[in-house]
Amino acid sequence: MRYLSFLSLIALAALVGCGGKEQCLMTGSNESKTAIFQKGEKGSGEMFTGTTWVRMLVTDKDKAYDTQAYNVVFEPGARTFWHSHPGGQILFVTSGKGFYQEKGKTARPLVKGDVVEIPPNLVHWHGASKDQEFVHLGVSARNDKGPANWHGAVTAEEYGEAINGK
Amino acid sequence: MRYLSFLSLIALAALVGCGGKEQCLMTGSNESKTAIFQKGEKGSGEMFTGTTWVRMLVTDKDKAYDTQAYNVVFEPGARTFWHSHPGGQILFVTSGKGFYQEKGKTARPLVKGDVVEIPPNLVHWHGASKDQEFVHLGVSARNDKGPANWHGAVTAEEYGEAINGK
Repeated sequence: MRYLSFLSLIALAALVGCGGKEQCLMTGSNESKTAIFQKGEKGSGEMFTGTTWVRMLVTDKDKAYDTQAYNVVFEPGARTFWHSHPGGQILFVTSGKGFYQEKGKTARPLVKGDVVEIPPNLVHWHGASKDQEFVHLGVSARNDKGPANWHGAVTAEEYGEAINGK
Repeated sequence: MRYLSFLSLIALAALVGCGGKEQCLMTGSNESKTAIFQKGEKGSGEMFTGTTWVRMLVTDKDKAYDTQAYNVVFEPGARTFWHSHPGGQILFVTSGKGFYQEKGKTARPLVKGDVVEIPPNLVHWHGASKDQEFVHLGVSARNDKGPANWHGAVTAEEYGEAINGK
């Protein structure tokens, strides 16, 4: 799947030749130039559906900040499992289009510059739209409260309803 | 000064006409398209030297996260005063070129993608290079420890030595 996407990207870049600004902005070649953080490691299948890339930026191994930070790249359609953070979480969207949904509520569309404050222990998911990559910086606050709790995958049906505004 | 810069920007954009990709990347018009967060309010003259723009992203008024977050745009030559954070601070560089210096140490150059962990109570400053704008997302951790302490301006001499690697 990734291999096919990569080939499509090369084909698209060759077709448009990156000759025009608008065209360049539509290809992945421009995206890679504007990415802030490197992609990191592939996300765990026990926390994510689809292909994600997680780069730990602040591990706080010495517990100086009580805070962890990470960059997450979600390929189109990719998303976290339902989960919650005992100390809360903050998301800073840096590119692409995605969604954030709290359990039982309508999903919120997200674009570059959006900030999401996720209160402690609130069950939610976040991830990409169906057709576009989505990138956010995530900050886990008050880590002394413990690690995230995971509540299973966001099913294809749940995801479909969320991105259709149901 | 800002008025003059704005006029120069318009003149430059008119000259190059944004006709080519490379040229567009060199003008401010492209920068505004790629900026992640809006500029916010002008930074206080009691905390910054030069022109800065501060946008609060997470105020944590309900103290849910013990964390504050803010985007800071430093125009060329602009910088914080010497200061320290009782709970520590983390910087995520999103564009431009800047510097971070701990009191008594050589300054560290910063570019997009760099992350700076600043331990609690360590006196330091951060800011732009002489010729380029610098933008970072800042996170103040463990806010229950209290607000930042300010220790006066980074003088022109201190700044000059820092950016020259002394």
